[in-house]
Amino acid sequence: MTLARRPGPATRVRVTELRDDQRIEHEDRLATEEPLEIRMSSPGVPARRVGITMRTPGNDFELAAGWLVHEGVTRRKDIGSVRYCTDVHLAAEQEFNVVTVELDAPPLVEPEARVVTSACGVCGKDTVAGALTQSSRPPGHVPAGVRIGLDTVRGLPAALRAEQHGFERTGGLHAAGLFEADGSRVLVREDVGRHNAVDKAVGARYLADQPVPPVLVLSGRIGFELVQKAVVAGVGVVVAVGAPSSLAVHLAAEAGLTVVGFTREDRCVVYTGADRVGV
Amino acid sequence: MTLARRPGPATRVRVTELRDDQRIEHEDRLATEEPLEIRMSSPGVPARRVGITMRTPGNDFELAAGWLVHEGVTRRKDIGSVRYCTDVHLAAEQEFNVVTVELDAPPLVEPEARVVTSACGVCGKDTVAGALTQSSRPPGHVPAGVRIGLDTVRGLPAALRAEQHGFERTGGLHAAGLFEADGSRVLVREDVGRHNAVDKAVGARYLADQPVPPVLVLSGRIGFELVQKAVVAGVGVVVAVGAPSSLAVHLAAEAGLTVVGFTREDRCVVYTGADRVGV
Repeated sequence: MTLARRPGPATRVRVTELRDDQRIEHEDRLATEEPLEIRMSSPGVPARRVGITMRTPGNDFELAAGWLVHEGVTRRKDIGSVRYCTDVHLAAEQEFNVVTVELDAPPLVEPEARVVTSACGVCGKDTVAGALTQSSRPPGHVPAGVRIGLDTVRGLPAALRAEQHGFERTGGLHAAGLFEADGSRVLVREDVGRHNAVDKAVGARYLADQPVPPVLVLSGRIGFELVQKAVVAGVGVVVAVGAPSSLAVHLAAEAGLTVVGFTREDRCVVYTGADRVGV
Repeated sequence: MTLARRPGPATRVRVTELRDDQRIEHEDRLATEEPLEIRMSSPGVPARRVGITMRTPGNDFELAAGWLVHEGVTRRKDIGSVRYCTDVHLAAEQEFNVVTVELDAPPLVEPEARVVTSACGVCGKDTVAGALTQSSRPPGHVPAGVRIGLDTVRGLPAALRAEQHGFERTGGLHAAGLFEADGSRVLVREDVGRHNAVDKAVGARYLADQPVPPVLVLSGRIGFELVQKAVVAGVGVVVAVGAPSSLAVHLAAEAGLTVVGFTREDRCVVYTGADRVGV
């Protein structure tokens, strides 16, 4: 996996697709996930950070304006100019990740700076850098030599689905399951929030004082914050039915986590750590 | 729509299903979405609130334990007891929405109380009640007499999909689209975060100083925070491909917002405001 990072809605990566008995390396595109810092100035008060959201670059001014109104911070008629920040202290690659909204009237409320995310794993961290490099989050220990067979990987979504009883009833729940490397199921948890499903599944092992199994299976997509949780939990392999984001793959590559997406019975795509996935 | 609220993973509601030419009223089940307040005590320091997450009730102790470890607040070995709160000031229906984790050692970091959600619309509000009733969020104006034809509703997901160019390329993006009541498309926005897609779509209208069209179409599920945004934006009808949560339907009913889910070419389910959907 080699990341060619670009400031756009899609990020190009090299992936390993395992289709039937073929192992094909090719270029693929991921949905870009990057932090956007929203700053606000108002009459007599200079610009201050009011929120950070993990988002897909593009239409950033619209996002900042919509967020401020929908969070109750301002009224639409009080939005003046919106611009990218040209703070001299910003690294060049962050220039398009900071937007300042100038209000023509005092805000309705003065929000505390906070981080909102595409699925909420980094809430409350107060800088972009802090959100991405959590020194207070020691990575968990992944047992050496974890390997998983290709047939096992392809069977995991069905094994997860068999335990998605809440989804069966409501159609509105995500699931996270912990599995051994041989494909045997340890436990499955469901929640409206995919990050909650992961916290529940791994938390069950913490409370039972038992080791965290090496394989985490997800019913949906793989966002940045799910990779963060998997790394702290000491999971070695994440297998998902959906797509990973660019930042999820970037972090997984750094942490040595194997990420598999678009997992079906006849194919899957390995984004990082392909050496752990065998035939 | 009548809600029979229950503390469980599924919530029973009365819905109107529109299938072919039939209008069928029946009971349905929604994924329950409720706030969980996580409190933490540590040696010499009494319990304090450290986070609130919108979650599906069940396995709450596991969720609290997993969340504290994965957020870098504590190590798994330092988790002592976990219990539901029996605070005398809590309303009875909130008793099972507050969990206290007793740590056997000081926390690695002292987190600021914060709200995390199933998809992040209420981040930063510091009480459950505050998150649910935002007095600083005046509802937008919905034009009187908004009605939408059944055939129009059923055609909206395809009309949205035709503009999901980022999803087409990456498979990893949500979309939100604004439409007129006659089904004509105004604009579509995409993002890794479904709440961002809504902020972008509506924010575009704010910046262009144009009215917000009455129909919001979503590629995925309808969480609580998307209903919050739709109400502030002054949207009258939300049409989604996926399922709504219990809290989304509850808020929509209070605000007079029409919510349609599981929208397909041959059927859809109306959860609130069925009078706006005609044949």
